[in-house]
This record gives sequence, structure tokens and C-alpha cells, in this order.
Amino acid sequence: MSRESADFKIGIPDGDDRERRMCQRCDFIDYVNPKIVVGSVVTWEDKILICKRAIEPRLGFWTLPAGFMENGESIEEGAAREAREEACANIEIERLLAVYSIPRISQVQIMFKAKLRSPDIAAGPESQDVKLVTWDEIPWKEMAFPSAVWALKQWHSLNGETVHPPFGNPEGTDHMTRG
Amino acid sequence: MSRESADFKIGIPDGDDRERRMCQRCDFIDYVNPKIVVGSVVTWEDKILICKRAIEPRLGFWTLPAGFMENGESIEEGAAREAREEACANIEIERLLAVYSIPRISQVQIMFKAKLRSPDIAAGPESQDVKLVTWDEIPWKEMAFPSAVWALKQWHSLNGETVHPPFGNPEGTDHMTRG
Repeated sequence: MSRESADFKIGIPDGDDRERRMCQRCDFIDYVNPKIVVGSVVTWEDKILICKRAIEPRLGFWTLPAGFMENGESIEEGAAREAREEACANIEIERLLAVYSIPRISQVQIMFKAKLRSPDIAAGPESQDVKLVTWDEIPWKEMAFPSAVWALKQWHSLNGETVHPPFGNPEGTDHMTRG
Repeated sequence: MSRESADFKIGIPDGDDRERRMCQRCDFIDYVNPKIVVGSVVTWEDKILICKRAIEPRLGFWTLPAGFMENGESIEEGAAREAREEACANIEIERLLAVYSIPRISQVQIMFKAKLRSPDIAAGPESQDVKLVTWDEIPWKEMAFPSAVWALKQWHSLNGETVHPPFGNPEGTDHMTRG
């Protein structure tokens, strides 16, 4: 038996009130908590950066640069890393735009408004294509995820305003976020 | 060998760029991502709800009702659940107050402003004591965590303003949040 192996059983730990995966060989409890997605609405002049997905889910559809936050980074660093990885983009985070809860898939999505430091962009390994589009050029019917659409529309609704409370899930979207 | 057992080795999955725990028997990859703490500055008239911790870390010190978000809930539901569990408090979430990154411990803390629906509070299993205190009565030297102090001071700085961008980590606190 190697040192890395674990032997999990489902049970309720002492003092807890819900089932967790517990190792039977040691005191390790595998707490599974919601994951954080960090991303941004990135602009260059009047254009917006979008990425065509080269991976599942929603391969071939367009989205904003966003992905799972990693250990050891801040939310802003995570959003900047995702823009770098997916679009080879060097971005400057401007402010928090929105925080969405998607309980159905246990995600919290934290979206920023950011701007490109230069218009040099290119598809990273997880993108088939990247481009800068005007508002009228956004391929709404080919967008991968509702939350990317929410972030784009909420950002656009600000009409240039830069001081605002962050947005949350739009009204009437519970059927999209609840199990 | 039971069905629940796993046999982990450390490795870099295909297409990834960092080490993960990977099961050698199946295709399970144990992605470890930052955890979300949800909590709130809860008020009743001019008083603030604080809780004395009955668990480690920082047992015996005071804090705000807050804890790890669970799967299947929204950030607001998580903050309300924590207030219920730690202080038997029924709260109404008013708005997002702050989002903090603590990369050193890979946490994102999402803090709300909330109010009590009634002044009935009592210590839950994770609290030794709970109380409602005025601003001048806050036991600053007996507070458990820097982020609870940040949230209290940032909320107080609003001086009643209710429409504002959320706060982030205060300036000059990198030494507290970085490894």
C-alpha cells in the first residue's frame, strides 16, 4: 500500500451535520465545497475580448476569459491568469463587476471589468480562436454560458459608469441556477 | 477493497500545468481549489452581532458569524446559514460588503451587510457566547481574525451609505495574506 493511498467511506464527522468522504485509515475528511470561477469583461477601446472554446463543455462556443481559481492566488490574479492562458492577453483589472451563485453546479463566479494593456491577443491551448468585437458583433446565439451573457449585458447597462455595487444573478434566472 | 477506496499519486494531468492528486485506479483527479468563507456584519438597531468561538482556530476569541460555504447553496444562503448555526440568528441579507482574498490559506471571504429580523440570539454549537454590542463596545483586542476587523471598520466607514462598490483587502495588508 503506497503512502498516497486513501480508503474513503461516506459518513457524518463528529460535530458536523452532513455526509462527507472520510478516510478509514487516517483522520482525513474530504470536505467538498463550491468552486470559484474568476473571469472578466476585457475591453480594448470600444471592443470586447471573446474566446472560442477548444475544450468541453461547450466546445466551439464563445465565452469570456474565465476559469477555476487556483490555490495561492488572489481573485484578481486568477482572473488575469485566465486571460493570459486563454487569450495570451495582458490585462489590467479595473474593478469587481459581478458575483454570481450557481448552486446547481456549486459554483461562485466572480467577474471583473478589465482592460487590455495592448491589443496583442492569441488563442491559448484552451481556445480555438480569440477576437475583439464591438457590442453589435457579439455572437449572442453562439455564447457558451448564461453567466457570460449576464456579465456582458450588466457591464453594458452601466453605460460608462465606473462606481457601482457589483451585480448578482439577474432576476428570473433561478431556473437556470437551481437544481 | 471497497468501492469507495481511491489510490492517489501526485502527477500533472494531460493538458494541465500543475501537480494534482490523481487516482491510479480511475480517471478521478482531485482538484484542490480555494475555499469560500461567507459571513456578515449583522446589526440590530445600533448594535452589532459578535460570536465567541467555541472551536479552534482562535477558540475563545470573538468574530463575526461566518464559515465555509457548502455545496448547493448561494452565497447569501450560506451567510444566512452561518448566522443561524453560530448565533441562532434569523438575518436578512442587505448587500455585498466586501470580498477578500487570503492567498496564504487559499480562501476567498465574501462578507455581507445584514440585519437581524429579531433580537433573539443564542450561542450555537460552535460558539461559547454571542452578544449585541455597540461600536464602542467591540472587543478589538480579542478579535479572532483580521478579516473580521476589516469588515467591521469598512462597514463603519460607510457612515450609513448603502450604495457602494464592495471593499477588498485593505491597503498594506499583503504581509497578512501572502505566504
